[in-house]
Amino acid sequence: MQRTFLLFLSFFLATIATGQQQAKPVQYPPQLTAELVKLRDTAMQSDYAYKQLAHLSHNIGPRLSGSAGAAKAVEYVADEMRKLGAEVTLEKVMVPHWVRGVETGELVSYTGQAPTTTQKVVLCALGGSVATSAEGITAEVVVVNNYDELNALGKDKVAGKIVLFNVKYDKQKAMDGHSFEAYGEAVVYRGGGASAAAKLGAVAALVRSVGSADFRLPHTGAMNYAADAPKIPSGAVSAEDAEMMADLVTQGPVKMHLVMTPQTLPDAESYNVIADLRGTEHPEQIVIVSGHLDSWDLGTGSIDDGAGVVHAMQTIQLLHQLGWKPKRTIRFIAWMNEENGERGGTAYAKDYGSQAANHVVAIESDSGSGHALGFDANVKPSSMEYLYPVAKVLAAIGANIVNHAEGPVEADISGMQELGVPGIGVSNDGRTYFHYHHTAADTLDKVDPKELQENCAVMATLAWAMANLKEGLPR
Amino acid sequence: MQRTFLLFLSFFLATIATGQQQAKPVQYPPQLTAELVKLRDTAMQSDYAYKQLAHLSHNIGPRLSGSAGAAKAVEYVADEMRKLGAEVTLEKVMVPHWVRGVETGELVSYTGQAPTTTQKVVLCALGGSVATSAEGITAEVVVVNNYDELNALGKDKVAGKIVLFNVKYDKQKAMDGHSFEAYGEAVVYRGGGASAAAKLGAVAALVRSVGSADFRLPHTGAMNYAADAPKIPSGAVSAEDAEMMADLVTQGPVKMHLVMTPQTLPDAESYNVIADLRGTEHPEQIVIVSGHLDSWDLGTGSIDDGAGVVHAMQTIQLLHQLGWKPKRTIRFIAWMNEENGERGGTAYAKDYGSQAANHVVAIESDSGSGHALGFDANVKPSSMEYLYPVAKVLAAIGANIVNHAEGPVEADISGMQELGVPGIGVSNDGRTYFHYHHTAADTLDKVDPKELQENCAVMATLAWAMANLKEGLPR
Repeated sequence: MQRTFLLFLSFFLATIATGQQQAKPVQYPPQLTAELVKLRDTAMQSDYAYKQLAHLSHNIGPRLSGSAGAAKAVEYVADEMRKLGAEVTLEKVMVPHWVRGVETGELVSYTGQAPTTTQKVVLCALGGSVATSAEGITAEVVVVNNYDELNALGKDKVAGKIVLFNVKYDKQKAMDGHSFEAYGEAVVYRGGGASAAAKLGAVAALVRSVGSADFRLPHTGAMNYAADAPKIPSGAVSAEDAEMMADLVTQGPVKMHLVMTPQTLPDAESYNVIADLRGTEHPEQIVIVSGHLDSWDLGTGSIDDGAGVVHAMQTIQLLHQLGWKPKRTIRFIAWMNEENGERGGTAYAKDYGSQAANHVVAIESDSGSGHALGFDANVKPSSMEYLYPVAKVLAAIGANIVNHAEGPVEADISGMQELGVPGIGVSNDGRTYFHYHHTAADTLDKVDPKELQENCAVMATLAWAMANLKEGLPR
Repeated sequence: MQRTFLLFLSFFLATIATGQQQAKPVQYPPQLTAELVKLRDTAMQSDYAYKQLAHLSHNIGPRLSGSAGAAKAVEYVADEMRKLGAEVTLEKVMVPHWVRGVETGELVSYTGQAPTTTQKVVLCALGGSVATSAEGITAEVVVVNNYDELNALGKDKVAGKIVLFNVKYDKQKAMDGHSFEAYGEAVVYRGGGASAAAKLGAVAALVRSVGSADFRLPHTGAMNYAADAPKIPSGAVSAEDAEMMADLVTQGPVKMHLVMTPQTLPDAESYNVIADLRGTEHPEQIVIVSGHLDSWDLGTGSIDDGAGVVHAMQTIQLLHQLGWKPKRTIRFIAWMNEENGERGGTAYAKDYGSQAANHVVAIESDSGSGHALGFDANVKPSSMEYLYPVAKVLAAIGANIVNHAEGPVEADISGMQELGVPGIGVSNDGRTYFHYHHTAADTLDKVDPKELQENCAVMATLAWAMANLKEGLPR
């Protein structure tokens, strides 16, 4: 997940808890409710999703767009969907192909050092960054806490320097339940810091890692170059190293040697994996369940977003296991390239946009797999009524918090939402998500099997309800 | 800290809380008690120790024996002690000089991989390990959970393989307050695993990192080669990578490519920094306050054991600030080479062993700087009476838990304890100590300024009491 923070801000405008129902409560037929209960309980007994996540994490590993891991994951997930009787289509997507290289940093000159000591700086390149030369660059470090401070320094004090944006992720806000808001506040510097610094003549830009845990882990993620600024190398340093540099610059000039040698290769051919369980009554009407298959390269992409992919795979598996056929088509999608380009979601909106009216709802999970809380729905306010009965079924597993979103939820499905398709994001406890997000520590052990089942239950019950409710979700 | 876990086990035999006093309570003169209160309160107001720790961490950095950082730290601490009016002696110690090299690992062949995918394994060499060739070795991985499993496999299944000891640190035990016990259980494989595997023909040995946090951090530390086994390269993998490898070997053969190129250079000249505040009445009688100056190379050695060094530095600073002169000599020692040889402590016991009878007590802090709990005393049981009045003064800061230890406490001062000198270790909340211990994340931010002050207060009050009490601590 990389862009969703923008969308999350809208939730605070309209949080509606289950039970606070309005004018016309929608009643589901008793049989449909019984089916949702059965799906929920079967999900809570299944180890299918966890086994799939273990395979994605351990046997396949990192899946950055264009990588061999991403290609293998496409092949693997498509095969798994075929085994479950779904009709598989691979939707071609040309994706960025950025490859991490060497990345090292040391402070080579600062107050108090012995002639021969240096301080190592733990860092990683940001996705999309250009490279330094192989020998790297050596320059003085300037530390700023925000754009105002940068601009106040001006060209005189920034030109020729390495700029460190020492912007702290608000850990307290995250622990208060607003981790995506905290992320959103800090991540703007990851995205745009390099070009802001380059416009003032900086030779490289570093950001303090955007994340909540301090285990000297750099957090990678996408960055973008402005069209009107030179492209300079851009990386993330660990929170600890940002603190150290901020301390040392108060004592005197600090010089850093920085080497980062990533490469941007030609765009690569890749795919959204689309797998349909065809509807028996309205095959042309589509309910999407989805997560994104690509992941950052440092970890194994278990929480971002292997979890979301297997939440969605479990919906197909449960219906296969139960031998149930939906009235509308349930379409599984494993999106490609959410992290550094959103090319998969964009391609789908282009290729299938003409069928937007037939897309009943697009559901995605892309915020990890903490204890499931419920879901966030970008639908007409009056359509919330159609979702509350699902939340009631989910109350038994503590996942009945339903939020109304005023704008698109989840990056991959935002294109379809812009075409009028209702969008729903699975929500869960994200307090520790940014401990691991985009780091080497995004690994399988960060996912609790029971919490994974809860998220699977949310996805499956939502999808089944939307695929089988007599009337589609009103727009 | 590396060896103390052995010593800690003895505490469980004889925990005595303050207040459970026995036959003959010892009363301190009111003036001495008032001085302890003043020292405690002054320590709790001082930022001296934190500033020193910041300098050791940020300006000097890692201080592994033989390194430029260690040399700079010796020079720096000696200078600081001279500034405070102490008489400084540098005690020469020849120390091991082991230097980390390249260290990389990948799983290159395993079930389910695409032809071109590999899985990265996050690892580090253990201190003292020999190197692989520059090209590294490629061999099948065998995973065992203990020595019994290793020996049950025998030479047939171990020869030519890389052995992974997947021994889990007991995180629950650590959270229950017994982190050093949990450490002691797992660390035996870090120390002896390589030789046990080598005896069966293994080509390399890896251990699951001994520690409580899962942020894909390898935890380094010392390992030792048995005289009767070939020396094979030995490293530590992160907990996550151990889990991955353990999963993959259940699916089929796993081959790993391992490169570790550390070097063992000739022993280097280094020093224990000794700084005396000479006693006004019994200058020949000595009270030691100490921590160890060397640290592992991955982090900046803030909790292990920069903290212990500055706890002891603060005692000297407080007496300088207050203008107080002790009746017995208070001797500050920054020990060299606790981590990978204990040469500093050994040298002192050799050089000063003949004066053991004049050493009233040796105090060390080497378990980080969590909330101070009190101290652990390896003294005659009846001598505990002489310590309770200090604990009473420390009750105001929650540091009055006093444990009687049946054997030596703290590695550097164990040699003197073996010669009959009473030993006291400062104790504190160690529940998160092994999150960071021996990792890159042992950095300044892991130390809370107030908790640092508490530990300084324990060290200073103990030292002042032992230096000024009319009778010395009975042996």
